[in-house]
Order: sequence, then C-alpha cells, then structure tokens
Amino acid sequence: MLAEIITIGDEILIGQVVDTNSAFLASELNKAGIRVGQITSIGDQREQIVTALDEAAKRTGLVVISGGLGPTSDDITKQTLADYFNTKLALNEDVLDHIKNLLAARGVEMNERNIRQAELPEGCRLLHNASGTAQGMWFEKKGTVFISLPGVPFEMESIMKDYALPRIKDFFHLPPLRHITVLTHGLAESAMAVKIESWEKALPASVKLAYLPSPGILRLRLSCFDPGMQDGCDPLTEETAKLRFLIAGHIFGYNNDTIEEVTGKLLREKKRTLALAESCTGGKIASLITLVPGCSEYFLGSVTAYSNTSKINILGVHSASIEAHGAVSQVVAEEMAHGARERFGADFSVATTGIAGPSGGSIEKPVGTTWIAIATDQTMRSEKFSLGEHRGRNIQKAAVAALFMLHKELMLLT
Amino acid sequence: MLAEIITIGDEILIGQVVDTNSAFLASELNKAGIRVGQITSIGDQREQIVTALDEAAKRTGLVVISGGLGPTSDDITKQTLADYFNTKLALNEDVLDHIKNLLAARGVEMNERNIRQAELPEGCRLLHNASGTAQGMWFEKKGTVFISLPGVPFEMESIMKDYALPRIKDFFHLPPLRHITVLTHGLAESAMAVKIESWEKALPASVKLAYLPSPGILRLRLSCFDPGMQDGCDPLTEETAKLRFLIAGHIFGYNNDTIEEVTGKLLREKKRTLALAESCTGGKIASLITLVPGCSEYFLGSVTAYSNTSKINILGVHSASIEAHGAVSQVVAEEMAHGARERFGADFSVATTGIAGPSGGSIEKPVGTTWIAIATDQTMRSEKFSLGEHRGRNIQKAAVAALFMLHKELMLLT
Repeated sequence: MLAEIITIGDEILIGQVVDTNSAFLASELNKAGIRVGQITSIGDQREQIVTALDEAAKRTGLVVISGGLGPTSDDITKQTLADYFNTKLALNEDVLDHIKNLLAARGVEMNERNIRQAELPEGCRLLHNASGTAQGMWFEKKGTVFISLPGVPFEMESIMKDYALPRIKDFFHLPPLRHITVLTHGLAESAMAVKIESWEKALPASVKLAYLPSPGILRLRLSCFDPGMQDGCDPLTEETAKLRFLIAGHIFGYNNDTIEEVTGKLLREKKRTLALAESCTGGKIASLITLVPGCSEYFLGSVTAYSNTSKINILGVHSASIEAHGAVSQVVAEEMAHGARERFGADFSVATTGIAGPSGGSIEKPVGTTWIAIATDQTMRSEKFSLGEHRGRNIQKAAVAALFMLHKELMLLT
Repeated sequence: MLAEIITIGDEILIGQVVDTNSAFLASELNKAGIRVGQITSIGDQREQIVTALDEAAKRTGLVVISGGLGPTSDDITKQTLADYFNTKLALNEDVLDHIKNLLAARGVEMNERNIRQAELPEGCRLLHNASGTAQGMWFEKKGTVFISLPGVPFEMESIMKDYALPRIKDFFHLPPLRHITVLTHGLAESAMAVKIESWEKALPASVKLAYLPSPGILRLRLSCFDPGMQDGCDPLTEETAKLRFLIAGHIFGYNNDTIEEVTGKLLREKKRTLALAESCTGGKIASLITLVPGCSEYFLGSVTAYSNTSKINILGVHSASIEAHGAVSQVVAEEMAHGARERFGADFSVATTGIAGPSGGSIEKPVGTTWIAIATDQTMRSEKFSLGEHRGRNIQKAAVAALFMLHKELMLLT
C-alpha cells in the first residue's frame, strides 16, 4: 500500500515555513503500515493543485493533502477540491455551530470569513477539527481516497490521529510494516558503517537499514515490510539483537526516545535529583529537561550564569578562579557544578562553560571551547570539548554532550 | 525563472527527519530572484530519482537536489547521477586531499568509504564542500542545470551560499523579486484579515499578500515580482507603508527578525540589563535570548526555579506567599521577578510561573494557567494567560508572551 502527501502553501515554496506537517503525516502513515512514495509541496494555485492531485492519484491509492484551508483569500484549496470532485460548497450547520462555540470560548467575534469556513464540498465526509475552524475532508474518486487537512500543525495532527487514521485503517486492509530505530551516540556515520559492515552485508532481504545522523546523535533504523515469523523467528527482532551486541556501549535508547527522556527516566528510577549551572548553553539544557512531563519529580532547577558576577554571587565561584583560569576553564566548570549542587540541594549537578561564538575566541581558547562538569556526592568529573564555529550548533552540541555525560554517570549507579 | 527542489532520503518519507533543507534552498533561491515551483521528496531509489529528475527538468530550467551523498550504502544519488548524465565516476585527487586533511584534523582515520567520496561523475563541475566529505556537483543537460548537494544541513548551506548561488547568478540573468515580511503579534489571522481587508482588496496586481501564522506570531508577507519604479513609485514600499499605518501597534519587526533579536537590540540601545526567573518556561526564555550573538552585553542570567524550595532559597520568594496563593499566582510571579532583579543586579527582570501540563491542573487553575511578571526600578507589571493543554506549546507560547511583554515595556522607555 502506497500513499502520497501533498502540502499546499506559497509560504513553503518561498522557504518562510519549514514543512513539518509532511514529517508528521509520513510518520503516522508508516506506523499504520502505509508506505509514503512521495511528498510534493506546491503553491496556492489552482492548476498546480489539480495537476498534483492527478499525478499523485495515478501512482497511489491514498493522497493526504495539508494546507490552504484558512479563512483568508490566499487559501483556495477547498474551492479547488469542490471543483475537482465536481461538487459545490454548501453550509454545514453542525460545523457552523462548532465554529460559533469555538470563537465564543476564545472571546473572538465571528466574522464572514469564519462563516465561510463552515461551507464544505457536498458529498465529502467531514473529519472533525475539535480545536480549530478549518475542517478536515475525506473524498473518494475512482478508487483513490483523498484527505484534505488544515495546515496548522496541531489541528492537522489531531484530525489525522482522531478521525482520518481510524477511517484509513477501516478502509484499507494492509500487511504490517515495522521499524526499530536504535539511537546511538559517540560514533560518526562512517565509523559506524565500518563497525557494523559485516552485519549489514549479511542482513536478510526483508530487513532494510538506514543511517539517520543528527548533531551528536546517530540513529540506525531497521525496517521490515514482512515482520512475521519466518522459519520460527522474527527477522527484525533478531537483527536488532545482533546489532545491540555489536554496539552496546553506544546505545542510549530506541525509537522515539530522546536523551532528555531517557536521562529523566534514569533519574526517576534511581531516585536522584538534578540541578544545573549553565553558562554557554544559556538555558538550553534546562529547556530540554523541562520538555519532559513530570520532570519536577527529579529536576530542582538551574542557574543560567551568563555574567561573571552571577557565577560568583549566585553559584559561589571564586573570583580568583576566574582571574587565574578564565571563566571558560575546568576549575570554573567544577566550581559552578559544586555551587549548583549546593544551592539547590541536588544529588547530581551539571555545569557548562564555553565560548559559543561567533566572537569571544582566542588562540588559546578558540570559539567552541567548552568545559562540562558533573558533580555528585562522590565524584566530580569534567571534560573539555572542542566544538565548531556556529553558535546555535555549539549550544545544541554542548547541551547534548552534557546530557550524555549525565546519562553515563547515572548508568554507573548500581 | 522557475526552479524545483528535490530532496532525497528514505528518512524523509518515513517522517523521521523534518526536511529543513527545502526551506533553506527555497528561501535562498527566492532571494536570488528565482521562483520555486515545486518541492519533491523521494526515497533512496534509483528509478524514483531518475523519474523525479525527468519530471522536474520538463517544468523548469534549474533543479536543486539535496541528499543521498553520504558514505553509506543507502546513499545512491551520486552513482545514479553519473548514469543519468551518461558518464562514470572518477577519483578526484584534489577532493581526496581535502577529505584526508579534513579527517586528519578531526582525528578520524580514513576508510575505504571516505575514499569513494572523492570519486565524482566525469564532466560535472565540483562545488567545494569546505566542511564535509560529500562534495556538491553541477551538471548541465539540454539547457537545464542540475545541482546536487549533500543532505547534512550546514554543509549543504555553505556549498549553496559560497559556490552554487554565485554560479547560478552568473548563469541565469533574471528580473529581481523582492519580499517584505511584516511581523505582528496580538491579532489572530481572521481578525487581521478583517482589519486590513479594504487595503488588501485594493492591492495592485504586482503585489501579492500571504498570511504566515505561527504560535503567537502572525507574519504578513508582501511579494512583488516587478519591484521597480512604476509611475515614479515603488509599489512594494508604498503598500508596506500603508500596512504599517493600519496596524502599527501590532508590528514588532520585519523579515527575518525574531522577537528575541528585536528585544535584545532594544535592551542594547536603551542600555538596560536583563535577568530572568523561569518556572513553567523551564529555561526556554533564557535559551531564546542566548541564541543571539553578543547577548552577554545585556543578559546577566536566569534562575530556573522548578521547585518551591528553589523559589524560596534562591529567589527569595516568601513561603507564606506560596502557601496562601500557590506557586502559580500573581504574588509569586512578582516576587520571583523582584528576586531575579535583585540577585542579578539587573535593570529589568521577567518571571514566569504556570502549569505547563499535561498534569498539575485544577478546576480553579487549569493546565495552561500562567502568570508573567516584569519588574523594573519603577514598575511591576504582571499578566495572567490562559494557554492551551499541550505542554510543549504552552512553554513556547509563554516564552513568546514574556518576550512580547518585555518588548512592550522597553518601547515605553524614552
């Protein structure tokens, strides 16, 4: 079973908006056992939409469309769909009530454009948008299903999950497709390729491997289109087990795990609390940790000490240490970690100090120089990193490196 | 002049990776005066790549391809391109030297896969990748230009900017295209549409308007394909001036400005320093502010006070205030702001306290309830927000709302 995704919006074609909807839709379709053959992004233009629908319908049985359903005049998808399916727009009273209630709850006055959002092409099935005014729609034409969803990500996501996917699963009866993604840290793509080369070459035809690198993290995705038992064994599980054996020390999680979730889970399981002292990462580590629901169980807080004065006054760093070694130094990183642990009364603390760039570097300490320290009641561990020259990436890399150091420290606990 | 973008990678089609490269490429091409007609994402499959190249070449004079050039066996773009252009791969000694030097500097040993990265299709022009091993390539066939770039974003970006775009500008001679994006806050899409309706209807044919909503921010993009002087005036500048007049109070910036940059610029210009006390935003505001290079000039630091104890011990919040009003309350927000301002010795401080969710809500204070306070030497201002139910979005919205409150406060300064 093959599907295609079409995202509509001039804002995509001029690069003002990153098309995250495609990734969400592709991920959900894959999980449901539907392979996505192509993703096409086009503008808010009638002929382009019609051509893209025609082309996609030639190649596939399911076309999921996102975007162009807003209340403004540049959004022409709904009228184009009505024409494409030889039908006309008609006011849907239920949808009008829903929009009325929604706007009333937000304290927003209803205008004519909102009323027009309650018009749907006759003959389409409504896919309810509980949290927005632009509704989802389901069309069928010559055996192909077309689903139209709004472009606002969280509205699109909930319509897809709650209404479109259940109907897709009912409509198509498909063989399962399964993925296992192994999350690793500490080996670059080519080094990993060499390390697992002989295993990779011996993979059965039913299992496909892909390398998915991102800053600091390399994900290895194993896919199996026929994950049933073959000769008494499941090839996906078996190959994953072999891979785990080969690279055990580099694995930190699986599938949609994030390093902040995995680390948070370890803190909870091992009943340890955490505090942070961030300089170069500027709140990034705290921000990652607090994305995880329930983090208040183990996360006490953080000081972002951007100025030397705040390092001294709030974290108790010695001014003599800064004078002798500079703010970006092992001594200051360790004193920051020590201070955060004490101030917050935490079991573990992590501190970062570095030169994020683009300015502030010297020959001795170029941009990217970063010290990370981890303190517990037993130990103080610190490590120096030479990151790159790009501010945003340096912050990201340092934050991820700090979480990995913490993860490693927690794994050592019995 | 029309171009198309093709991004190659199974990881895009299963939704494990968001295709940010397309947005970057589209934005750069647009700035150069080249309109992007379509973006197509396909898998690492020979036939799909060939078909996509053929189709794109039929519609356009420039095809920019990204992805599939890595050292691993799932990356087949380079061999496919060699076959597509009827040529064969040959070792390029200069590229080999470059890869050798690059790996040596990283302390990585060269392996056979890296050597193969120095092989290029004969007859293509090299687009140098200063920071990576996968090179960019320029092909010409029947009047259409094909550019192949690696998928690693920062490598792709620097090849595009430093080598591909200058050559594109040389090769094609094109009329200019100009955009002005007006960044607004405080009006939803449909309310904005009503507010500027008569202006929008009277826009000249050469000026196109698009609404680009994102959480807390609505961008209005005006585009003009022929931005020269018409009857002695420039329609883009003129229409932007009218729009500014209509919605002045909602505008915070233009084009690629971010609220954190604009706010930072105001702090610098007005010579004020800033400190933060974050609870529900968990470091997000600090993380946004410190993304801006040079922020240490005005940003002193932040306390992420996730536990009540840390609110009391580090920020000096009164335990009686927490007992009487709860941690999520106006009183506590204001005491946090006061404490941050004092501890860091800052001119301005911003504090957040709220229920980010998904748990922790009550009937009186449902998930999304958030207090934000701003303290100066003259004033204490606080505001209550009722955000949504989604943790990540609540954090994002609260951080953006706090930055807007700060921006407004700074604008009041003379």
